[in-house]
Amino acid sequence: MIGMGESRKQVGVLGLGRMGAALAGALLEAGHDVVVWNRSPLKAGPLLDRGARLAATPEEAASAEVVISCLSTYDAQRPVLAAASPKVLVNLTSGTPAQAREVASWASAEGIEYVDGVIMAVPQGIGTPQSRILYGGSRAAFDAQREVLSVLGEPVFLGEDAGLPALHDLALLGIMWSTMAGYLHALALVGTEGVTPSTFTPMALSWLSAVSGFLPGIGEQVASGDYATDVSALDINAAGLGLLVETSRERGIGTSVPSAVKELFDRAVAAGHGSHAIASVIEEIR
Amino acid sequence: MIGMGESRKQVGVLGLGRMGAALAGALLEAGHDVVVWNRSPLKAGPLLDRGARLAATPEEAASAEVVISCLSTYDAQRPVLAAASPKVLVNLTSGTPAQAREVASWASAEGIEYVDGVIMAVPQGIGTPQSRILYGGSRAAFDAQREVLSVLGEPVFLGEDAGLPALHDLALLGIMWSTMAGYLHALALVGTEGVTPSTFTPMALSWLSAVSGFLPGIGEQVASGDYATDVSALDINAAGLGLLVETSRERGIGTSVPSAVKELFDRAVAAGHGSHAIASVIEEIR
Ligand SMILES: NC(=O)c1ccc[n+]([C@@H]2O[C@H](COP(=O)([O-])OP(=O)(O)OC[C@H]3O[C@@H](n4cnc5c(N)ncnc54)[C@H](OP(=O)(O)O)[C@@H]3O)[C@@H](O)[C@H]2O)c1
Ligand SMILES: NC(=O)c1ccc[n+]([C@@H]2O[C@H](COP(=O)([O-])OP(=O)(O)OC[C@H]3O[C@@H](n4cnc5c(N)ncnc54)[C@H](OP(=O)(O)O)[C@@H]3O)[C@@H](O)[C@H]2O)c1
Repeated sequence: MIGMGESRKQVGVLGLGRMGAALAGALLEAGHDVVVWNRSPLKAGPLLDRGARLAATPEEAASAEVVISCLSTYDAQRPVLAAASPKVLVNLTSGTPAQAREVASWASAEGIEYVDGVIMAVPQGIGTPQSRILYGGSRAAFDAQREVLSVLGEPVFLGEDAGLPALHDLALLGIMWSTMAGYLHALALVGTEGVTPSTFTPMALSWLSAVSGFLPGIGEQVASGDYATDVSALDINAAGLGLLVETSRERGIGTSVPSAVKELFDRAVAAGHGSHAIASVIEEIR
Repeated sequence: MIGMGESRKQVGVLGLGRMGAALAGALLEAGHDVVVWNRSPLKAGPLLDRGARLAATPEEAASAEVVISCLSTYDAQRPVLAAASPKVLVNLTSGTPAQAREVASWASAEGIEYVDGVIMAVPQGIGTPQSRILYGGSRAAFDAQREVLSVLGEPVFLGEDAGLPALHDLALLGIMWSTMAGYLHALALVGTEGVTPSTFTPMALSWLSAVSGFLPGIGEQVASGDYATDVSALDINAAGLGLLVETSRERGIGTSVPSAVKELFDRAVAAGHGSHAIASVIEEIR
């Protein structure tokens, strides 16, 4: 709800997919005046029941003080934004740094105050402490909208460069996709001996929490370029990856992702990093 | 230290690499009588200073009540174990389920009580609450040695099948290697715009903790085969992977791992899972 010293704002929301609907819902929950637009207007139903108003066009929604856009892609978004031409635009559609910078220049040419953002949460996390949103672009517009944006998740401002959120988004999502691919491979592997997800997952979570603890040390080694290790040498890990691929192959499960990681580690070993830390693998990426 | 009702044990340790030395160190710390053997005996120095005894041969170390073996690979270990012929063997060398089962049959033929184990920790974690070790094989031998094994880390017994720890080890390490490859790729990507590991890593850790929270839901979907989602559809994630690969390529950094994950997700989309949850990707692995 709107608290003391806080003000009810008119907020336009463009896009009512899984994420857009969650954003609009959190804004309503907080007591804001929410006007929504979606290509398929039927999706607005549950939000209208909760007090949202339906705009017939993007332009109508864009008459609000601030407009939040969350469509599937920049390609889908381009004509919608062009039609909307809002005063203040917070763009939460995922894309590349180049795409975000392109929208920022367009906005600047149109006299639109522009904030780019990326949501590091699932729709169910919006409005909870598990939601964090990274922003970049106009600092003044971000500061002016901070209160309303805080409703959606913890806002983190990365800098005036509108491409920075998308850069961080791709990097962070890349970690998520790799981790999920590793987890799904693990489920397939233990599944070959009848071990179920419900048995395996608690072990995976406790291990992943340990693995998180290894990352800062790896980051420091990447920063310093000093790959000496008293923890674990790359060659033993590359050999282990070989066993993972071999065992997976024997059991007839797919090996494309672990094979790619193995080839990357093997290249680093071949480049002379066998007795170095795993961090040295970055030399084969960058 | 040895507490009330606990007994000082004679423990042999074969292998004093990074991990073997940490195991021997924790056993000494707990007050046990530790006899160590390593191919390169010089590595024993610091442990001898702390009270360990040096065995000239594997056989000499194997006269202890229980012998822990931790060498680089099963190939390295085979002749050492054959020479040692211990009474009770706890094998902590990493390998495949098949390799572990082979040692278990050999041990059984030789009348050696056999416990297989895999260490889900780094050497620096041994003897701390961050260390967890998964065991399988002889339940009687495990129970008899539980006290001494608890010194190394939280012991978890998976079952009488000596191949189960290695199965879980490969699956869990696969998650680690994937996650690390994703993290190193992320560092390389943000590094193209001068973002340092020390700036990026706290965001990566908080995000990885959120990602951990997504895994149980994915596991349930894998178990049930019901891939309907109100969280996030596979096609949007596959498209995002495309943007990650494209952006990485434009910046001249390696794309082998994200490309492999993208191809896997794309295959699942092509198989009709585009509107399903990410969990559906397992259909393309198993
Ligand atoms: N879901 C998540 O977990 C999550 C997390 C972080 C970020 N995001 C990002 O949030 C954005 C939306 O994701 P989502 O999960 O909400 O996707 P979604 O459920 O698939 O919804 C897609 C939205 O885009 C609209 N759209 C698609 N093509 C369009 C077009 N050509 N013209 C106009 N509208 C179009 C859809 O309208 P219709 O209803 O008419 O089809 C719908 O509103 C994406 O950029 C995604 O990467 C999502
Ligand atoms: N380090 C970790 O973070 C970690 C974590 C979990 C599990 N593990 C597992 O623990 C085991 C040992 O890893 P580590 O990190 O301690 O490796 P390491 O530091 O490279 O030590 C390797 C050990 O194996 C011995 N060795 C290698 N080839 C041999 C041979 N042909 N004959 C006799 N001895 C031989 C070495 O003896 P020399 O000293 O004579 O070379 C040394 O004792 C591996 O299976 C590894 O996967 C390690």
